[in-house]
Amino acid sequence: MISKKMLRLAQGSSTIRAMFEEGSRLAALYGRENVYDFSLGNPNFPAPPEVKSAILDILDSEESTMVHGYMSNAGYGDVRAAIAASLNRRFGTAYTEHNLIMTVGAASGLNIFLKTLLDPGDEVAVPAPYFVEYGNYVRNYDGELVVVPPTRPDFQPEAAELARHITPRTKALILNTPNNPTGVIYTPETLKALAEVLEAKQKEYDTSIYIISDEPYRELAYDGAFVPWIPDYYRNTIVGYSWSKSLSLPGERIGYVVLPAEIDDFQLIFDAAVIANRIIGSVNAPSLFQRVAARCVDVKTDLSGYDANRKMLYQGLTDLGFEAVYPDGAFYLWLKVPDGDDAAFSQRAKSYNLLVVPGSGFAGPGYVRLAYCVGADTIRASLPAFKKLAADYGLR
Amino acid sequence: MISKKMLRLAQGSSTIRAMFEEGSRLAALYGRENVYDFSLGNPNFPAPPEVKSAILDILDSEESTMVHGYMSNAGYGDVRAAIAASLNRRFGTAYTEHNLIMTVGAASGLNIFLKTLLDPGDEVAVPAPYFVEYGNYVRNYDGELVVVPPTRPDFQPEAAELARHITPRTKALILNTPNNPTGVIYTPETLKALAEVLEAKQKEYDTSIYIISDEPYRELAYDGAFVPWIPDYYRNTIVGYSWSKSLSLPGERIGYVVLPAEIDDFQLIFDAAVIANRIIGSVNAPSLFQRVAARCVDVKTDLSGYDANRKMLYQGLTDLGFEAVYPDGAFYLWLKVPDGDDAAFSQRAKSYNLLVVPGSGFAGPGYVRLAYCVGADTIRASLPAFKKLAADYGLR
Repeated sequence: MISKKMLRLAQGSSTIRAMFEEGSRLAALYGRENVYDFSLGNPNFPAPPEVKSAILDILDSEESTMVHGYMSNAGYGDVRAAIAASLNRRFGTAYTEHNLIMTVGAASGLNIFLKTLLDPGDEVAVPAPYFVEYGNYVRNYDGELVVVPPTRPDFQPEAAELARHITPRTKALILNTPNNPTGVIYTPETLKALAEVLEAKQKEYDTSIYIISDEPYRELAYDGAFVPWIPDYYRNTIVGYSWSKSLSLPGERIGYVVLPAEIDDFQLIFDAAVIANRIIGSVNAPSLFQRVAARCVDVKTDLSGYDANRKMLYQGLTDLGFEAVYPDGAFYLWLKVPDGDDAAFSQRAKSYNLLVVPGSGFAGPGYVRLAYCVGADTIRASLPAFKKLAADYGLR
Repeated sequence: MISKKMLRLAQGSSTIRAMFEEGSRLAALYGRENVYDFSLGNPNFPAPPEVKSAILDILDSEESTMVHGYMSNAGYGDVRAAIAASLNRRFGTAYTEHNLIMTVGAASGLNIFLKTLLDPGDEVAVPAPYFVEYGNYVRNYDGELVVVPPTRPDFQPEAAELARHITPRTKALILNTPNNPTGVIYTPETLKALAEVLEAKQKEYDTSIYIISDEPYRELAYDGAFVPWIPDYYRNTIVGYSWSKSLSLPGERIGYVVLPAEIDDFQLIFDAAVIANRIIGSVNAPSLFQRVAARCVDVKTDLSGYDANRKMLYQGLTDLGFEAVYPDGAFYLWLKVPDGDDAAFSQRAKSYNLLVVPGSGFAGPGYVRLAYCVGADTIRASLPAFKKLAADYGLR
């Protein structure tokens, strides 16, 4: 028989993935164009042309045994150096290849740190709402995810609320900005206040508490919004990144983590994280796409499509009388459910072929998440269906 | 501070990787061509031309959002179907896409199964000598690796010895054939005898014991040697594969696992393993290389280079008076240390710029492993150095 942990997971499974399967079922029934699937964060836009050019150029100019071969488990040195240089240009930092580890997407980056940090029973805090997989990642190492509930209507995490959830067993705080599912970018004021709490708690308990900043949506910030570089606000910060969204490469599993030399136990954590990268089964980030990423490190993400979607969806739904958090980043709209019952709302939405994810799945009851990384046509065509839904809820 | 488990690992680290670093140090000192590095299983031959053709064709003919996008966590359905069809042609099986999960190399394949199967304290048996990472993979899930010592000079595992190491807590037996580090292919007789032991123990304890067959070297069998398909010998067999060696793509992390429908708790294990693939951080196998693998599924591995190396190295060393296991597969030579002290032998070899890995690192003391996936020139140039080493040991 299978392990007790996995038995629970196999019986529970993921809400978002269940929606994905449901979407396929409805598409088969009604035709793909008549199903409005806002459930999955799968970029609808193609990778920029620089990705293909980079692949072709690498295959023509570099040795096969190097391009497809083993390298240090931390990744190619030249690739890590190129990324460090790009970060230094953008954030005024002084990273080198020795501050970076290439990872199988951001998910592996989080996993190698949690594996490095956690003993059974250790706690990892996260402000709600949050990406539901964090709980699974933490429990992989028998840690406990401690949820810090939202207290503000703008979904900025509140320092006083964080303080109430930090204990001597807290090893890390996961932050995700721009945020999935809310689209909110945490402000410098928020980050300063959170950092002060952590500094004080580190002193009080004589512990190290790391911020693990999960930043797959870093490049997806609209209207020129600034996404703060969290190591500027808090010394013990580790940053995880992925090109899944910025270069539309979610299937390729290519990302990295940054460990500033200033963090407590820097070298020990770096060495352990490289070993963790090897033994969780990743071994190293996919080699060709490491080299592609280095060549595309300064490619600007074209946000125009997501931005247009964002405006059309927000405008369309608020015109119908819905309330939503205006998203500054990522590609999610966090919509308030009129009567607060997000499960019932999602079910009712489905009867109009609208697929949305109940907020309860993100520890954010009373809301639903709409991923607008879809075709503009889908949004346009969905509005009449949303109008019927609005009418059901007695909105204007 | 970091977790207790990782602290031990960070302090221990890998013997093979340490050799790799040592190789770089010696190469810097004496020049790459004067260091004979037999320490690392990194294919020296380029990927076959079909890999590049497949990449170019995919980039020209398939949609970017599909090639680089998310798919089911188990992998693309069409890719899994293509691999299943190829297995069916070769082994007379009847697999479909529903028997396959694409994985981030064979290492992730092993990890998702061990995560699926193991509760803390569960045991996984492995015949020695074995690939040292198996222990780390098993301990990732708080399992215990139980080493079945070798009893025969030909390094075929012995059924009676296996029987002495199976307990009510045994969840799996890892087999690796062609074997790293010995180059031995387990014979049908060996497999029949091992299967009989497991069948009897399953009955005795009323448990399910799975064989996890780790087969990255399946295509590397010389002189037309036959590598048995283990599910033909034992019903509860799961097979893990990687194209790292057969297509010289170790950096790309692309492999798969096969779950025959006949195994106990098939559907539950399949579903749990797909979830494990997601939550250990892999999410899915790299997407472009899934599609490349499907197109290259019947590309024949060119063994001529490895085969020539194998003969030259075996002949050269036995001519000098060394004893070694004649390798039928993989690209490793398992060399007997004249006085049995493999650590001292490796040190002494290093004084002649010869890098070999002590067998103790594989639970095979008294031997050293030589990886002959190197240039033929390296082998030719190394023989005078081996001659000096042979002289030190008083060989002819």
